[in-house]
Amino acid sequence: MKESKLIDKIIKLFSKKDKSIVLGPGDDTAVIDFKDKKKYFLFTVDEIVENTHFILSFLKPKEIASKLVRMNVSDIYSMGDAKPLYCLVSGGINFDKVNDIWVSEFLNGLKKELDFFSIINIGGNLTKSKDIFFSMTLVGEVKKNKLIKRSGATPGHLLCSVGKMGFSAAAVDIMVNRKRESLSEIEKKLVSLFVKPRIYSLEAAEISNYASAMIDNSDGLYKSAEILAGLNNIKVKIYYDKLLKSAHPVLIKWAEKEKKDARKYALFGGEDYNLIFTIPEEKFNSLSKKIKDLNILGFCDNGVGVEVLNYHGKIKNFEHFKN
Amino acid sequence: MKESKLIDKIIKLFSKKDKSIVLGPGDDTAVIDFKDKKKYFLFTVDEIVENTHFILSFLKPKEIASKLVRMNVSDIYSMGDAKPLYCLVSGGINFDKVNDIWVSEFLNGLKKELDFFSIINIGGNLTKSKDIFFSMTLVGEVKKNKLIKRSGATPGHLLCSVGKMGFSAAAVDIMVNRKRESLSEIEKKLVSLFVKPRIYSLEAAEISNYASAMIDNSDGLYKSAEILAGLNNIKVKIYYDKLLKSAHPVLIKWAEKEKKDARKYALFGGEDYNLIFTIPEEKFNSLSKKIKDLNILGFCDNGVGVEVLNYHGKIKNFEHFKN
Repeated sequence: MKESKLIDKIIKLFSKKDKSIVLGPGDDTAVIDFKDKKKYFLFTVDEIVENTHFILSFLKPKEIASKLVRMNVSDIYSMGDAKPLYCLVSGGINFDKVNDIWVSEFLNGLKKELDFFSIINIGGNLTKSKDIFFSMTLVGEVKKNKLIKRSGATPGHLLCSVGKMGFSAAAVDIMVNRKRESLSEIEKKLVSLFVKPRIYSLEAAEISNYASAMIDNSDGLYKSAEILAGLNNIKVKIYYDKLLKSAHPVLIKWAEKEKKDARKYALFGGEDYNLIFTIPEEKFNSLSKKIKDLNILGFCDNGVGVEVLNYHGKIKNFEHFKN
Repeated sequence: MKESKLIDKIIKLFSKKDKSIVLGPGDDTAVIDFKDKKKYFLFTVDEIVENTHFILSFLKPKEIASKLVRMNVSDIYSMGDAKPLYCLVSGGINFDKVNDIWVSEFLNGLKKELDFFSIINIGGNLTKSKDIFFSMTLVGEVKKNKLIKRSGATPGHLLCSVGKMGFSAAAVDIMVNRKRESLSEIEKKLVSLFVKPRIYSLEAAEISNYASAMIDNSDGLYKSAEILAGLNNIKVKIYYDKLLKSAHPVLIKWAEKEKKDARKYALFGGEDYNLIFTIPEEKFNSLSKKIKDLNILGFCDNGVGVEVLNYHGKIKNFEHFKN
């Protein structure tokens, strides 16, 4: 089954109307109304699996912990003026592959990252598993009047991003069939960006005052634009020529050396966890005075799907199941 | 690392004082106060992993779904007058091992079980994984004045159970190295009890009016008694001679045929998900008029640890990590 078909099936099967559910499966997080006057509660889950998301010999346990926390935290902040509160972690460990020191380093790394984002762990479960995996459920909250969904964009709105992109896809390319010791300084830097991507929490809160729709860039810009186009019944047009401005400077340096096109990484790469949003054109200037590292990537138009202006290459689809 | 040592380390590392946390890691669920006047919110996570909890060729996908839901739901109900509300599911699928029909049957089975317990799925995540696994986070609620913790027992209180026990451990013994087709009728019945254990939801609510402490029987009676003894600084004494009354009738029939001691299965077997609780002696009669299938298993005394009266065999320790 193709991933998109599987997800459609799941959303259809489990979508249930209930007055407490503001947003169910299909956005970055579920939004639940527990009748608090000022805030909604947010729920999201994400996972990291050995040999799918990481090679055990390549990443340090604290790096796996960082990645696990940040991929989840990103979903919470992308909902607007939001913050994470509590987490639950389940995992499968193989003591034939890792020892007590590895587990301790993972737990200490997890604790450090949770403290950094002021998240309290309230539960977990560990069991035996051949391949190592961790799943994290994050509970957060968002101000009711500052909730930004994936829907809300209309033709004419600008497509923007905050933060640099493309570095994770480059890191994944670098890590395939390589040993960590053999990496150059610039390659090492890309890997460290991959395992500890910057999370734009303050920016998300500011953007929520202006944006019409927002999504965290976990599946890449192209796929994110496709999701926004589909949910909003619009066409999203992306300026390929302007993507270098959004590409991470380390990626640009590496791409020059390797004779690659950094814009392609910015367009199709996933797991960067910066923010992609739409905004009415007249509000852009006010927002750009408030936050740095803001880029216009394209705009919303009438129509369907995504068009990458001035791009003549192949469209690379980001799929979690490759068969 | 021994499981108990690992769990102690985790609880110590992550325990954090926050006024919203009524109960953190260490009970069946976390109990959080979101300032609702009448209820606390409950959070729990549990997982089911191929080749640790199930053999793919042995169990049907809908049975894996049943087991996943019930092992989680049990944690919620064991908190007193409680009910599950929402769930999030993450999983790893291997499309080289299972096909679209398998996934559809799993999802349909999951939906049926969630509907049975009035749980709404609000999110999830699926990825590729060599061994198949599913992790479920369950959000529930409990009436503030009807919360029963694992702590609260004192010397003199009776140790009781509601529901029959030992069938799951017998099923696990049966499933090892066997094919499903080769099972006898009685063995099939034990396996079906294992994949779809009865959950004592109404009983839990009633017990919450009388009990001093409660735990769901996921790790077996002996281990549960050990947990209650440790948390309450008491000694728990179990009547071995009376355990036949709590053993499941199908287990008793099977044990007779196989010349096994059903009491041993009731004492050490895990994953039965019935309820074990302590109660002041004078309240027992009133409760026994309200619910069926109630048994006195022993009592709380001064001292430490667990003593099984009239049992002279070995103590079998239930460990998730066997190394």
